Amino acid sequence: VAPDSDTVTWGMANFIAAEEFDRVRGYWWSPDSSQLIVERFDEAPVSQWWITDPSQPDVEPAAIRYPAAGTTNPEVSLWLVDLKGKSREITWDREAFEYVVSVEWSKRGAPLVTVLNRQQNHLQVLSVDPASGATIVIAEVHDDAWVELAGGVPTWSPDGRLIMSSDDAKSQTCRLTIDGDPLTPAGVNIRAVLNVADDGLLVATSTEPTQCHVAHVSYEGKATILTKGKGWNVARRGGDALLMMSSRLHSLTTHRNVLRWSPGSTSLTKLASIDSFNETPSVLPRLELVTLGDRELRAIVQWPTDHIAGSKRLPVIMNPYGGPHAQRVVESGRAFCSTQWLADQGFCVIVADGRGSPGRGPKWEREVFGDLATAPLEDQIAVLQAAALRWPNDIDLDRVGITGWSFGGYLAALAVLARPDVFRAAVAGAPVTDWRLYDTAYTERYLGNPAKNPENYECTSLIPLAPRLERPLLLIHGMADDNVVVAHSLRLSAALTAAGRAHSVLPLSQVTHMTPQEDVAENLLLLEVDFLRKALT
Amino acid sequence: VAPDSDTVTWGMANFIAAEEFDRVRGYWWSPDSSQLIVERFDEAPVSQWWITDPSQPDVEPAAIRYPAAGTTNPEVSLWLVDLKGKSREITWDREAFEYVVSVEWSKRGAPLVTVLNRQQNHLQVLSVDPASGATIVIAEVHDDAWVELAGGVPTWSPDGRLIMSSDDAKSQTCRLTIDGDPLTPAGVNIRAVLNVADDGLLVATSTEPTQCHVAHVSYEGKATILTKGKGWNVARRGGDALLMMSSRLHSLTTHRNVLRWSPGSTSLTKLASIDSFNETPSVLPRLELVTLGDRELRAIVQWPTDHIAGSKRLPVIMNPYGGPHAQRVVESGRAFCSTQWLADQGFCVIVADGRGSPGRGPKWEREVFGDLATAPLEDQIAVLQAAALRWPNDIDLDRVGITGWSFGGYLAALAVLARPDVFRAAVAGAPVTDWRLYDTAYTERYLGNPAKNPENYECTSLIPLAPRLERPLLLIHGMADDNVVVAHSLRLSAALTAAGRAHSVLPLSQVTHMTPQEDVAENLLLLEVDFLRKALT
Repeated sequence: VAPDSDTVTWGMANFIAAEEFDRVRGYWWSPDSSQLIVERFDEAPVSQWWITDPSQPDVEPAAIRYPAAGTTNPEVSLWLVDLKGKSREITWDREAFEYVVSVEWSKRGAPLVTVLNRQQNHLQVLSVDPASGATIVIAEVHDDAWVELAGGVPTWSPDGRLIMSSDDAKSQTCRLTIDGDPLTPAGVNIRAVLNVADDGLLVATSTEPTQCHVAHVSYEGKATILTKGKGWNVARRGGDALLMMSSRLHSLTTHRNVLRWSPGSTSLTKLASIDSFNETPSVLPRLELVTLGDRELRAIVQWPTDHIAGSKRLPVIMNPYGGPHAQRVVESGRAFCSTQWLADQGFCVIVADGRGSPGRGPKWEREVFGDLATAPLEDQIAVLQAAALRWPNDIDLDRVGITGWSFGGYLAALAVLARPDVFRAAVAGAPVTDWRLYDTAYTERYLGNPAKNPENYECTSLIPLAPRLERPLLLIHGMADDNVVVAHSLRLSAALTAAGRAHSVLPLSQVTHMTPQEDVAENLLLLEVDFLRKALT
Repeated sequence: VAPDSDTVTWGMANFIAAEEFDRVRGYWWSPDSSQLIVERFDEAPVSQWWITDPSQPDVEPAAIRYPAAGTTNPEVSLWLVDLKGKSREITWDREAFEYVVSVEWSKRGAPLVTVLNRQQNHLQVLSVDPASGATIVIAEVHDDAWVELAGGVPTWSPDGRLIMSSDDAKSQTCRLTIDGDPLTPAGVNIRAVLNVADDGLLVATSTEPTQCHVAHVSYEGKATILTKGKGWNVARRGGDALLMMSSRLHSLTTHRNVLRWSPGSTSLTKLASIDSFNETPSVLPRLELVTLGDRELRAIVQWPTDHIAGSKRLPVIMNPYGGPHAQRVVESGRAFCSTQWLADQGFCVIVADGRGSPGRGPKWEREVFGDLATAPLEDQIAVLQAAALRWPNDIDLDRVGITGWSFGGYLAALAVLARPDVFRAAVAGAPVTDWRLYDTAYTERYLGNPAKNPENYECTSLIPLAPRLERPLLLIHGMADDNVVVAHSLRLSAALTAAGRAHSVLPLSQVTHMTPQEDVAENLLLLEVDFLRKALT
């Protein structure tokens, strides 16, 4: 199929689907390989933005289409395309349900398309007639805040029943359902369906949010947990072979074992292990996983390798992500190597997840609805204060810095602006500073439409706080960032300058939202530490 | 005349003429108003650059044509255009002489066109036949470095003799000549011819470079100086009326008087004065104009208003421009108000001109030929050290900062990078950091062509010095700067980051090369002082 125009793309996931719905695929083969479902999207109605590299004035700026909060999304449709290139549109009420969240086409049933309305509080599961492209609604979900599904659902069971997830208000867990009836028990949060087999489902589950366990669930609801002890586990299945990837908090190795497993049994036989050729980190995290404060906030506390407990009160660096849909506090030692390096420079480093983070149930996740600022910041402070109570001779509350990237950068900048009584310095990497500049699907999910809910945007923006800055703040931002555009940092910097507030900016030329470049990443750590050391010691 | 294409402009001065040859005009009427000389320039061969405002990602970047050192200039030609729109090209060897430095068309003679070769060491004065457009060479100037002319020349005397300026090697002065013979005395530098009348020329002169005096010179060489005492004076003449603008070092007022003057007499009668409605500055400069060091460098030294001499050694801020073709140390109090404000924050502020600055003769100006770094920096240090010898109880050599804008920003950044033993901190505003990124005419005049003289560019670039930074450095740059583009600061910042050297950047959104915006200018001063105070006190 050829593009219809410059703004039309076939066969790829649009930006919003990939960035905000974890859908990176834009075509799906039928089980018999006779046709495909193909995404078509047209960015003509989406605002034109430019991403530039002012360090190279002779390079033409790149035009991109960026759907900022409150503006028009790309027009997305799905098409049945046969091997001769003949196509038929799949029809549904695209006006009412503009997001295509997922598509599945398995031999177990008709193609399943999951669509969501713009406000994200009404989801429909559609069954597609692969001959005509007509659809029927086979399931619907409403939510007062936003609809949240586990990974891997909806899907068909082998006998043609619909596997879905459902947020159970009473038990505050995300449970699997089969044709609407609960399949997994209350109290166990389902993160994702990993595999569908004749004997049952392989699922990733959390009872304790810092852990992830792999379980087998039969279609009668019989659950067998396949992973033991504390840890973070994910798996893939093929027949009676499992590929199990397991991390532990006090190990730097992720074990990748191929195991033989017979359904119904709990015995796993190791067939092979996959070697890891990752570089061995030069640090060994010295950390504690703790639960702190009234809200039982999970946190990792890291100490300098040579710190003698009780000998010395250390300056603190909070290093959160803190935003929805992502977790930092997990039972995986490998996740805490760069923070250990930071601790070894003479700091107590604390990584904490607060309200809004996944794995603690539907209500916990939705605590940030309408306000992405208050609860995440309160929870960082609660962890800090509880840690100081627990380690009064090791933590110095008069020397607390905060650093983070992306949402973590937002939270770090927010912290020094709003709570200079607590935070003495901040390093904000690629921060959002005004949610009006961030994308439709993510932002509107939490804050609503800026035209209808301007107060949600006003009270979470960092710009009005600029005149209040009284602590050292370093803004780091990739000039080529096409996700959180550099305008975020530049607008905060301009507001700070207009208010005569001293601050530092580190513009990273030819860097996007992440900094995989080894030399950039390494030097950023050095520069961050230099900045924090000057401010805190 | 209509444009021939999108890249062609008629009737305006091209960027290089305006920025580097002080020629802001692109059309010249004949004295009888029957036709014009019109500049045509075509920017098609000039590199396309983009000026962007990344703080507004939805605003389309502006495409500009920027002739960077070593790249192709716009193609410039001159045309005779009559009132019916008929045009004839003015012909000369445009390949050999691509710069049109000046055009004059007075009733005193044929049109005069001054052209210069790309290397700027060979200048020709052309006389134009207004009927055919043909030209003849009526004067030529060669220089081992570059050709320098006084302002307002070449021009015709009323009796048809050519008035030119000439750099006299023996007396090291710029003298006026008439048909090749000296008209003004050795030892008096001519800055500009201000007026041509039947009785003689009105000229701006300097014997002492910090002063400018207005004189009348008859065509027989009789000179009458019309301004008295120390000061900086410029004038305009109409018949027997002079408009005289006079500044003094210890006054904040520029007096603008209309005077009656009869040629041959030295008596001036005041007819009227033009009121000034400028805001009265809130500071009164407390300054000394001194001559320091073996090279008799001129400098302004400013003290806090309440400083008691000898009571306290103060941190020092050097505030140079320091580049060729511009002077800071002049007998005009008004020029030192913002530096007095800076001094009043608790600093000794020193403004010094070094080698390369105008008004001290041809050799002095050309001391920077091939190297814009060494002499200007040496001279700032020489002034500093001599000042410390003169005021040992008032100046603290262990706390010296430097701040400047444009070339001054270059010099400030160079100072901390190359001489951290002397300079403890720098604020560099809109600095050049690599001369390869600056324009053709300015840069090649001093450093030659980057392809032929790469060593001149290498040894003056700040980029290779980045790993040596060990002092606080704040880079301030307008993101919309279309003269010294922000790439200068971004590339230095990137080199510093790549070397793991801490530094600060203040990117000014929607600001060009200068900061006339009152709030920006005021806040920049506050932020500069904040930065320097932290670094020096």
